[in-house]
Amino acid sequence: MEKFDLPQRLQGSAPSVWNEYIALAMEYKPLNLGQGFPDDAAPEYVTKALAEIANDENPLLQQYTRGFGHMRLVQAIGKLYSKLLQREINPLNEVLVTSGAYEALYSAIMGHVDVGDEVIIIEPFFDCYHPMVKMAGGVSRFIPLKPTKTEGAISSADWVLDEQELKNMFNSKTKMIILNTPHNPIGKVFKQKELELIADLCKKWNVLCLSDEVYEWMVFDGNKHIRICTLPDMWERTITIGSAGKTFSVTGWKTGWAYGPANLIRNLQMVHQNSVYTCATPLQEAVARGFELEMTRLDSPECFFNSLPRELQVKRNFMAKFLQDAGMKPTIPEGGYFMLADWTNLEKKININSEPDKYRDYKFTKWMTKNMGLQGIPPSAFYSDEHKHLGEDFVRYCFIKKQANLEKASELLEKLKNN
Amino acid sequence: MEKFDLPQRLQGSAPSVWNEYIALAMEYKPLNLGQGFPDDAAPEYVTKALAEIANDENPLLQQYTRGFGHMRLVQAIGKLYSKLLQREINPLNEVLVTSGAYEALYSAIMGHVDVGDEVIIIEPFFDCYHPMVKMAGGVSRFIPLKPTKTEGAISSADWVLDEQELKNMFNSKTKMIILNTPHNPIGKVFKQKELELIADLCKKWNVLCLSDEVYEWMVFDGNKHIRICTLPDMWERTITIGSAGKTFSVTGWKTGWAYGPANLIRNLQMVHQNSVYTCATPLQEAVARGFELEMTRLDSPECFFNSLPRELQVKRNFMAKFLQDAGMKPTIPEGGYFMLADWTNLEKKININSEPDKYRDYKFTKWMTKNMGLQGIPPSAFYSDEHKHLGEDFVRYCFIKKQANLEKASELLEKLKNN
Repeated sequence: MEKFDLPQRLQGSAPSVWNEYIALAMEYKPLNLGQGFPDDAAPEYVTKALAEIANDENPLLQQYTRGFGHMRLVQAIGKLYSKLLQREINPLNEVLVTSGAYEALYSAIMGHVDVGDEVIIIEPFFDCYHPMVKMAGGVSRFIPLKPTKTEGAISSADWVLDEQELKNMFNSKTKMIILNTPHNPIGKVFKQKELELIADLCKKWNVLCLSDEVYEWMVFDGNKHIRICTLPDMWERTITIGSAGKTFSVTGWKTGWAYGPANLIRNLQMVHQNSVYTCATPLQEAVARGFELEMTRLDSPECFFNSLPRELQVKRNFMAKFLQDAGMKPTIPEGGYFMLADWTNLEKKININSEPDKYRDYKFTKWMTKNMGLQGIPPSAFYSDEHKHLGEDFVRYCFIKKQANLEKASELLEKLKNN
Repeated sequence: MEKFDLPQRLQGSAPSVWNEYIALAMEYKPLNLGQGFPDDAAPEYVTKALAEIANDENPLLQQYTRGFGHMRLVQAIGKLYSKLLQREINPLNEVLVTSGAYEALYSAIMGHVDVGDEVIIIEPFFDCYHPMVKMAGGVSRFIPLKPTKTEGAISSADWVLDEQELKNMFNSKTKMIILNTPHNPIGKVFKQKELELIADLCKKWNVLCLSDEVYEWMVFDGNKHIRICTLPDMWERTITIGSAGKTFSVTGWKTGWAYGPANLIRNLQMVHQNSVYTCATPLQEAVARGFELEMTRLDSPECFFNSLPRELQVKRNFMAKFLQDAGMKPTIPEGGYFMLADWTNLEKKININSEPDKYRDYKFTKWMTKNMGLQGIPPSAFYSDEHKHLGEDFVRYCFIKKQANLEKASELLEKLKNN
């Protein structure tokens, strides 16, 4: 090993799937349904707030703020979740503001997982979980959600964990389980009974639950997002993560948070203090103002947290239809803004073997980008090496896109029918 | 050890000096010359750019951008430093944009320092260096700058490293030396000969130089900031860190960068990809526009990089005078925006032992905050445990403050004279 090679904790690190697919998008300029961000305008009051803050005569709005979170923002977050959780949250030591939910995940994992600790990761998973666990010296233990049906109308609710398999994952070395609900990429909204099983195992084995709930407001068809920290005796062992980028459709603002009991949040604070120390003041101030407004109308249909899922559900239905029309088999998501679709019916119409990749979903998505001008993400990127085959039949598309772009995607796929 | 205690790598972590002194400031509301940020308006074109971006009709300016740096910003940074270094910098793989220079330091240390590696840290040091090295499993080796005189007019140039002592720090386990020029808190601008000594030792022992140059534009009295990466054969072993917060007086924007050869930057990319992934798009876009403007007038006195140090030098002189008038002995900084002053002449006039702290500079700064309404930072926070006594006679004040506030500080100290 050369002296300036990667240290042990980073050995084997490689650029993520995003680097490759963003570069691909820059080269081929496809219609991009890959990365998860809205291409429509963010709510005007949020961007207006940022403009006002930039022009504000108070110069301190452009300077360092409190390291563990801008006061106005932690107060807003504390107030909102106190109401949602029916539990008083202390904004000073039970909330940490981070550089996006991403940094909250990192701080939770680096702040809690020690060398040799086991972490249970549910597949498919947001692809950063495993490298973060690896960097902390932990050992990832993977358990896949599996579809209970593969024909007819498939819902994300049909993707489930095997109860016995889950029970077998827990042991005395288990430090943490990472839950993601609503789930990326499946769109599954975990049900009360499913969460109770996870909670019971966490309590039995004294295990921490890291609950990634960044899509908490995007739930369809009357489904209900349940926060696992509200289950009996779970507050004291749960760290919950949220995202202003997802909540206010401003993913480029990189403002997220974690909340939980002070003794657990303290570990995150120590990582945060060593790594970024404090987050951007004007963005935190603007997000705080956004929350303050929405809190005055939480129960109203105008509240963005209510209007966004209403609009998204229409987009979801539109996408599901055109994917089906094109011959794919989508899993209809109950939440989130991604849709997984089985593309294998199209295989006979296209020549994916012109792509030299190892996994068929990589071949498919690259072929589609280059030849049809439509980009999706290969879900095998969201599986461990041993389970990558479980993702190969699928592609992930993002539907929080302008109607015009969804229509264009529909037209591009239309062409395939006549192939 | 309880199951949810801090992992090994974070054992012994504690809230930083900033937490304590920011809380103190919130309680006593002193005139705050502690933390390093300007309390005057940032250049109007920078904040205007942010407002324009917030209001821009292109929705993508609020969404995720390239993970290793927004294209427009890495291009601007690449162009600027290509000119300053007289070397072509590749913006795609020789520049990384980070959540402040702080995250650049973290990524460099976590990305290069392996368990057991030694890192040479020059004291006094920006207080995060050591916890970052510790988190990486490295071993900090400390060497203090020492004043060669303690009477009469003292310049930051009078604080020097002992050549033999420095030579003795290097050995086969040394992975990195952290250089900070212009230096916080002393204000020292390292001279060609001093940098050559460090460079020669780095080359002799095959050691990486992490050069924290966030105050690169704030240099006074015709002194010249020399970038160590421009010394012969140093490019290939230097990672240089810069800050938009310091460069454009917007510390709350948390936008920084690292540049260096691709093989060294790659290690930082891997940490960045695991920890924050991407930085705030609107802030990066605004900083890029700021750089583009300044690059058209780099040699003009209107360039902010030239006007800021001119204005700062006046503030420096003003502060040096009122500290002297109050009976303190300041070290006149050649660069940066901090001033170290020996306060021990005041000891007989005040009762610092009413404060229960261990170190005398903590006692002094707390007493001053509570009783005189003036806050500085205790420099012993910037020394290793074994060397904290070297900082106890001093206080650090920040002078990038409005004239009215500097005058108020002067008046507060005036009162002490009559004590």
